[in-house]
Amino acid sequence: MSRAWNFSAGPAALPEAVLERAQAELLEWNGSGASVMELSHRGKPFMALAAAAEARLRRLLGVPANYKVLFLQGGATQHFAQIPMNLAGPGDHADYIVTGHWGEKAVREAAPYIDARVAATSEAAHYLALPPRASWQLSPGAAYVHYTPNETIHGVEFHDVPDVGGVPLVADMSSNILSEPVDVSRFGLIYAGAQKNIGPSGLVVMVVRDDLLERAGRPMAKIFRYAEHAANDSMLNTPNTWGWYLAGLTFEWLEAQGGLAAMGARNALKAKTLYDAIDGSGGFYRSPVELASRSRMNVPFTLHDSMLDAAFLQESEAAGLLALKGHKAVGGMRASLYNAVPPEAVDVLVKFMRDFATRHG
Amino acid sequence: MSRAWNFSAGPAALPEAVLERAQAELLEWNGSGASVMELSHRGKPFMALAAAAEARLRRLLGVPANYKVLFLQGGATQHFAQIPMNLAGPGDHADYIVTGHWGEKAVREAAPYIDARVAATSEAAHYLALPPRASWQLSPGAAYVHYTPNETIHGVEFHDVPDVGGVPLVADMSSNILSEPVDVSRFGLIYAGAQKNIGPSGLVVMVVRDDLLERAGRPMAKIFRYAEHAANDSMLNTPNTWGWYLAGLTFEWLEAQGGLAAMGARNALKAKTLYDAIDGSGGFYRSPVELASRSRMNVPFTLHDSMLDAAFLQESEAAGLLALKGHKAVGGMRASLYNAVPPEAVDVLVKFMRDFATRHG
Repeated sequence: MSRAWNFSAGPAALPEAVLERAQAELLEWNGSGASVMELSHRGKPFMALAAAAEARLRRLLGVPANYKVLFLQGGATQHFAQIPMNLAGPGDHADYIVTGHWGEKAVREAAPYIDARVAATSEAAHYLALPPRASWQLSPGAAYVHYTPNETIHGVEFHDVPDVGGVPLVADMSSNILSEPVDVSRFGLIYAGAQKNIGPSGLVVMVVRDDLLERAGRPMAKIFRYAEHAANDSMLNTPNTWGWYLAGLTFEWLEAQGGLAAMGARNALKAKTLYDAIDGSGGFYRSPVELASRSRMNVPFTLHDSMLDAAFLQESEAAGLLALKGHKAVGGMRASLYNAVPPEAVDVLVKFMRDFATRHG
Repeated sequence: MSRAWNFSAGPAALPEAVLERAQAELLEWNGSGASVMELSHRGKPFMALAAAAEARLRRLLGVPANYKVLFLQGGATQHFAQIPMNLAGPGDHADYIVTGHWGEKAVREAAPYIDARVAATSEAAHYLALPPRASWQLSPGAAYVHYTPNETIHGVEFHDVPDVGGVPLVADMSSNILSEPVDVSRFGLIYAGAQKNIGPSGLVVMVVRDDLLERAGRPMAKIFRYAEHAANDSMLNTPNTWGWYLAGLTFEWLEAQGGLAAMGARNALKAKTLYDAIDGSGGFYRSPVELASRSRMNVPFTLHDSMLDAAFLQESEAAGLLALKGHKAVGGMRASLYNAVPPEAVDVLVKFMRDFATRHG
């Protein structure tokens, strides 16, 4: 087998050009006499690499000067807990907008550290539609409002940044960061596990407004304080150097593609191609998600007869289309269309879907 | 430049055979159609890889059946905090044996979660000798005794496992795990940042006696509970899949080298070669560490005239010997001789040192 079209929800496809570059310099990076994995994070060569990666990310996202960029560990899940530890004191409360599995988990992991209030949830709608902004019950004095701009499992995505007044907006962008331009100044804190749109797993990228770093009032180890990580350029302890390196290569690749405006157009087109194929299949395929809430990144769909699921998965894999099985919580199929999935992959998928429908229709 | 002899203290040299294998299969792993970094951690291929890595580690270390093996994130530093969170309740106390920088840090990070008592310290001896076991002031009812078998910066190492009676012994083995055989049953918990003797940074390997996992009594997020990680085979959230993969390749390489008995003999010989060269240099080089406490893994040494330091570093690098600069806390030089540093590298270093002494003597 050679490289297939990979629709994995995460860890997910990486740009092939990034993998080829990493492969070429795996044994010796940049004339250093060693693999990038074998270099001290405190040596000049790696420090320069790290700073360049941050600078590229700042350019791509247009990060304002009063925001810090952090390269952390632990996955988004660890930061579900660390965010309330850092952005609130004991007795504070925060509002959570729950639009799927990850929003639910964010509430659960925050609960030991803050009064985490569910200000809106689409659970009653099985997370297949977003709760209208007008229905949100935001509470006065909230430390922040947390939401999940894109839900990987349920396949719903906010297409605008919600207005929450002066309260800091905290966004788990794990599955749609860097997929289109975003106005960072609308947010207090953005964070993302790297393994969907940035690089390998084991790295978290965070963008946080610097005044929020002053809030962490409760006793905790230094290693949990974002302010300490910021003061130490994310080298309070040894960072995930390989992840940071690959993230930098991905940022460089994104710049070469034309930046986030170009990626946004490309991602919109990829999503349209797949949704059109689903909607135009005469009911053979169905998207369970409300039209206005559909995700550009994760496209769950069902076959009209679930008895065909096994055949669909077997034949798609044989055709070089990987990881199309839906999450067990929702069943059916799911195609994840992150930045590194090329339009060609979607074209191949859509053609396969049409052929499959013809054969099994 | 090509690959040099790398004496970095961490991130550190990896076995060249491991890097070559990772390079060869970087774009496609094991016929999967994707890089190992692009595979879901919950798919069968990665689950099999993960289980095989754990099985190899268990064989290498001889881990008893009543111990769990965890693959975590956050570096040893995060676990300085998480260990008291998990192994003790509020109001408990624990004893710490402080023999260098990392032991100091372990106490500081634990302090918000437990009464961390320094039962012994060699600070007065500038951490150049270990405190004799008879001098330790262990306190009755301690939740555990924590120590650092090898101190990376100061270059001191315990050559026997201290007897602490029935109290669980907790060891930060970041810089000497897998460097020689060890009797795991003597420990309650062993943990190690991967970036010295295991793999790339961003991964922590932990071996913990299962009864200790029941102790975590205080409220905390699930993601901080070792018992949850154990119950979920270290896939409570997305693990560092690349680190896990490389750790598995390193374990495989260690088995091919003859396991830990063979590595122990090889490491003892490497250390003897370098210490003999230092001790036999007629005072041109000096080891500041007490003879009985000398580390096999990290060998700090000074030149008789610190004015020669810059020339030593420049000439050694030109000779293809990397990262010999000592930590700023102790100055001078340091050669780290982890598993992946071959005996040949030490031979080249020793020859360079002799030539340098002749030229500058």
